[in-house]
Amino acid sequence: MPRETVSHEEGAIYEFTPDLEPIAEVEPGTELTIETRDSLDGAVQADDDVIESVPDEVNAATGPIAVAGAEPGDVLAVEIEDVRVAEDRGRVITIDGFGLLDAYDEIEAPRTTITPVEEIGDADATDADGIIVFDDLAVPVDPVIGTIGVAPADESYTTLVPHDHGGNLDTTDVSAGNTAYFPVFQDGAMLAMGDCKAAMADGEMCGTGSEIATAIDVTVDVIDGADAAVDLGRPLVETPVAWKTIASAETMEDACELANLDAIDLLVAEHGFDPTEAYMFSSLVGGLEISQVVDPLVTVRNAIPKDYCEGPF
Amino acid sequence: MPRETVSHEEGAIYEFTPDLEPIAEVEPGTELTIETRDSLDGAVQADDDVIESVPDEVNAATGPIAVAGAEPGDVLAVEIEDVRVAEDRGRVITIDGFGLLDAYDEIEAPRTTITPVEEIGDADATDADGIIVFDDLAVPVDPVIGTIGVAPADESYTTLVPHDHGGNLDTTDVSAGNTAYFPVFQDGAMLAMGDCKAAMADGEMCGTGSEIATAIDVTVDVIDGADAAVDLGRPLVETPVAWKTIASAETMEDACELANLDAIDLLVAEHGFDPTEAYMFSSLVGGLEISQVVDPLVTVRNAIPKDYCEGPF
Repeated sequence: MPRETVSHEEGAIYEFTPDLEPIAEVEPGTELTIETRDSLDGAVQADDDVIESVPDEVNAATGPIAVAGAEPGDVLAVEIEDVRVAEDRGRVITIDGFGLLDAYDEIEAPRTTITPVEEIGDADATDADGIIVFDDLAVPVDPVIGTIGVAPADESYTTLVPHDHGGNLDTTDVSAGNTAYFPVFQDGAMLAMGDCKAAMADGEMCGTGSEIATAIDVTVDVIDGADAAVDLGRPLVETPVAWKTIASAETMEDACELANLDAIDLLVAEHGFDPTEAYMFSSLVGGLEISQVVDPLVTVRNAIPKDYCEGPF
Repeated sequence: MPRETVSHEEGAIYEFTPDLEPIAEVEPGTELTIETRDSLDGAVQADDDVIESVPDEVNAATGPIAVAGAEPGDVLAVEIEDVRVAEDRGRVITIDGFGLLDAYDEIEAPRTTITPVEEIGDADATDADGIIVFDDLAVPVDPVIGTIGVAPADESYTTLVPHDHGGNLDTTDVSAGNTAYFPVFQDGAMLAMGDCKAAMADGEMCGTGSEIATAIDVTVDVIDGADAAVDLGRPLVETPVAWKTIASAETMEDACELANLDAIDLLVAEHGFDPTEAYMFSSLVGGLEISQVVDPLVTVRNAIPKDYCEGPF
């Protein structure tokens, strides 16, 4: 099967709703290249392009893409093979009313810092894709997919919000070399993604990474829910060395609880532990990690090293 | 100078107060071996030894040790060369009213799981110090110093509580190969440490790691406050690859803010950034990490890779 391309110019959403209409339909196992525009729709090209308030439409997610045969209760697997930056600059911005330190007087908003991309790698490179320049500092390009998800069960969520369907997870592990898994809530799953960053710190404290357009190579697949060892209710990411549950909630404490409960489910399924044993074991290896602390809900993950968990699929 | 030994049998504290009396006095540059007992004072030796409620005295910290010449405004540097487990078992416990998932019905408290230590390494080893066994899983011994700190400025804090003086930080980076720095609030600094774990996950979700007695090799030193590029107000840890600010607060959101503000101070001092530039840059590299989510205050850190920060000392 030749690799299919889906571009943001064909369609992009600003809200994950239960009744999304696909712009493309693919079979399980399809290799896709998904082209995304930057989270600010190109509005910021220079340091004096500032964003006064959070736009009504932000984080355009290319799609939705229906995956044939995906049904509620299944799991959508998105193997991320490569994320390439597709323009010569990223942008880091502050917006009044947004960001971890928004309430502090010494932080200025709105402000924009353009981070030029240098030495863009060739299309086949999965690393060493160049650098971005911030002031006089060079930061390796290490792209992160900020917004990725599927059609939710009942509620609708703008692409600014993360929840059980994915959405604005802003999770550094959603990147090349890893596989993201999502619960399927609607026929066809309805995958969409965008809002990529050339680089991002865990936490995304100022409210953005270096926002940039990309081309993303993925292979999508569908796992029958009956073949999964856990009943996946929230996103999960697999890295070469760990399984990481991902949970979003109003507070970090609540997100930690959900991420830990999901990690406990993995350990119970893997080892036949009772929940308390799994809870105790989860306190010994891997642990809680911060994805982002700035979106309207915050996102936390709980890593379980693969040494102790082969995984649910 | 021969290495000096200070044992918990000579003295240990359950509260960091402004007016601590030292059990030992050492010169800057002294190499010390500090012997610690387990956080539960030996009360838990078998699976049927359970702890019904959080003890009034917990996390005994060996010390205090006065470091000659340390004065308020200085920085105490504690280079951690080795942490060796000193008994044949650790213990993981749940206590009713304590732990991330304490409110969940499926979690049983009190409960104890003894984790036997096998293949204890020799005294010179800094890694490969054996394993602990949880059920049928082997977890490498990778000791963490849970409670470490100095005499606070004004308030007193039990050794269950982390704050600006250190205390119950439960931070996995406070371990062999790293250096922990503390603000000096009182003459002599008054260093004390204990509450070690044979292994611990970031988050320490169930409320403990594998609690264990240890022998800790450190070198203590004093940095003149005037020689520091930042006015250190909270603990800081240096690993081979990063500087990590450490902040404790009532909520994780508040702790994230403090840890990020301290990281911004490091970047401002290093690069001459204004605070907003430093905030933006902090959103690109390293990032926020979770230390623990269970102590009466929670603890978060913000990592800045050494690639972008030579450090303040």
